[in-house]
Amino acid sequence: MSIEERLSSIKPVNKDLYSAAQRRLDNLTKPPGSLGRLEEFARRLVAIYGTEMPDMPKKVVFTFAGDHGVAEEGVSAYPSEVTRQMVYNFLSGGAGINVLARHAGAEVVVVDIGVAHDFDDCDGLVRKKVVYGTKNMAKGPAMTREEAIRCIETGAELAREYAGRGFRAFATGEMGIANTTPSSAIAAVLTGRPVADVTGRGTGIGDEALKRKVEVIEKAVRLNRPDPKDPVDLLSKLGGAEIGGIAGLCIGAAEMGIPVVVDGFISTAGALIAWALNPVVSDYLFAAHNSQERGHRVMLEHMGLRPILDLDLRLGEGTGAALAMTLLDAGLKIYREMATFQEAGVTGEKTD
Amino acid sequence: MSIEERLSSIKPVNKDLYSAAQRRLDNLTKPPGSLGRLEEFARRLVAIYGTEMPDMPKKVVFTFAGDHGVAEEGVSAYPSEVTRQMVYNFLSGGAGINVLARHAGAEVVVVDIGVAHDFDDCDGLVRKKVVYGTKNMAKGPAMTREEAIRCIETGAELAREYAGRGFRAFATGEMGIANTTPSSAIAAVLTGRPVADVTGRGTGIGDEALKRKVEVIEKAVRLNRPDPKDPVDLLSKLGGAEIGGIAGLCIGAAEMGIPVVVDGFISTAGALIAWALNPVVSDYLFAAHNSQERGHRVMLEHMGLRPILDLDLRLGEGTGAALAMTLLDAGLKIYREMATFQEAGVTGEKTD
Repeated sequence: MSIEERLSSIKPVNKDLYSAAQRRLDNLTKPPGSLGRLEEFARRLVAIYGTEMPDMPKKVVFTFAGDHGVAEEGVSAYPSEVTRQMVYNFLSGGAGINVLARHAGAEVVVVDIGVAHDFDDCDGLVRKKVVYGTKNMAKGPAMTREEAIRCIETGAELAREYAGRGFRAFATGEMGIANTTPSSAIAAVLTGRPVADVTGRGTGIGDEALKRKVEVIEKAVRLNRPDPKDPVDLLSKLGGAEIGGIAGLCIGAAEMGIPVVVDGFISTAGALIAWALNPVVSDYLFAAHNSQERGHRVMLEHMGLRPILDLDLRLGEGTGAALAMTLLDAGLKIYREMATFQEAGVTGEKTD
Repeated sequence: MSIEERLSSIKPVNKDLYSAAQRRLDNLTKPPGSLGRLEEFARRLVAIYGTEMPDMPKKVVFTFAGDHGVAEEGVSAYPSEVTRQMVYNFLSGGAGINVLARHAGAEVVVVDIGVAHDFDDCDGLVRKKVVYGTKNMAKGPAMTREEAIRCIETGAELAREYAGRGFRAFATGEMGIANTTPSSAIAAVLTGRPVADVTGRGTGIGDEALKRKVEVIEKAVRLNRPDPKDPVDLLSKLGGAEIGGIAGLCIGAAEMGIPVVVDGFISTAGALIAWALNPVVSDYLFAAHNSQERGHRVMLEHMGLRPILDLDLRLGEGTGAALAMTLLDAGLKIYREMATFQEAGVTGEKTD
């Protein structure tokens, strides 16, 4: 299926179900609205699943990994080999995302979509390599248009595959040394904000490196002239592969009627590309948290998403999304399991 | 044991353990500090438990119930009988706190400390009734000094009892129609802020009732002259029984070296009384969330506590505290379960 076909098959959620869900919520033994955003999560999930009494969903976090040619410009605090080292760490269960996905009761699917390394004999790795690391965007396009399309298709196909296996809640995550650099570039071009306003310290660079990072992004945008009206062009010129995979996952999830919890800064850049291709995608998106990374909030506001958590996280991998999944579960449990006023024999009428 | 003896036996946590815990956190496979507040939770829990590798704790939410004579002034949106009706709902497992405590893997302990109703044949209710509802604070003291002391002792004894049963993480909750009214009164007197600044809509009263609520509180404070230097005097004059129980639970937990997750507005009024008796208590407190109720933030700032969640909750019962417990667990799991750089063979040295 082409990306265009996928995009045109995305349907807005049935907004009538918001009021049906709210009627049930208002009849549960609590003052109306007193469970705040848990009620919002329940309403939205009811509308996304398209049924007045959804089951508790089986959950999965997709952690897409890719390398970035732009790392050679000294924009990250860590060397590129950390990307592949962390992939091995994900596979052996010792990374932050493994711990928090277990905590959330979610599986972790690690996807090599663009790591500059051969993972020949790895149990548990999903091999979907589109590029062997992107090219340095400060010297030319990060990928070809063809490669960018394949990244998006890869994410969308994974959505379909895991929906077929019975998963009904997705979260995004990523690993890729230097990947806040293309993310800031995407944020700047798609929201129209100056590069410096949406560029932060990533894994923890100092003042000098931050200045260089801003200059590298400005140079890459000048050189490649990504077209803000053509998100695939933008993705191909700035990268990265994992960001394209996340964009595709969001598109595929919306197509399949499955909610996606979008992790932090880099994941949100991927979601923003999906949203730029078809803004109806945002009916299916939840923003996991408010990242410490500058520029995250700008993208969330651009899409009208309000973050669920604010815990000063800036690790990525899907860690914030795994945590936020537990709060969506809490919202759905409230909706499913609380007694109504009638069932409990509690006076539901207000006195004033 | 007298309250004075309990207060003097509370020890500050061992702050050296903060740095020991941070050393381990900085050696886990992530950029230093990138798990933000999860790292703060882990550090604090290590110091509270007084061991470099704490076990995952057994968790319990205490939901204290009490009635309030001041309800007759028309300060609440619901009639007083809802307090006892909700106690029955807690006992049959259909309330918000039951659902969210199950979600968090915590037990719920429902304590009748001051309900104006006889619960003769109730399975699962902890009967510790000190008063048969408080008296109307707008006409005189809500309780005697003796009763206020018994409320605090009840909470502290429960802390000791459940510590003895192996529980190592406590959360506070409450049910009591009209109990935002004494909570606002306590907040105003102990923080020195005008009543109107710390008085909100509770379960959802309209403008007229809110105006009346502020006037009732101002009248009660004028009439009873609670002494801000004597928190027990304050508790006795303003009430309520469940707020005293929560204050006692915080004191008992600090005495036993057990963390307490303080729920929302009313629970925080209880914690504030404990803090006013001995500010070292705050070493053991976590603020669950930022309640929708006006005045909550004022009390948290007064004690130097930063809320964990911000989900527009205003239900009480312990619902926000149960949710926040899951995030403390997440922080401790990260600390216990993540691989170190050495174990995972990941380059931990920064390049700049």
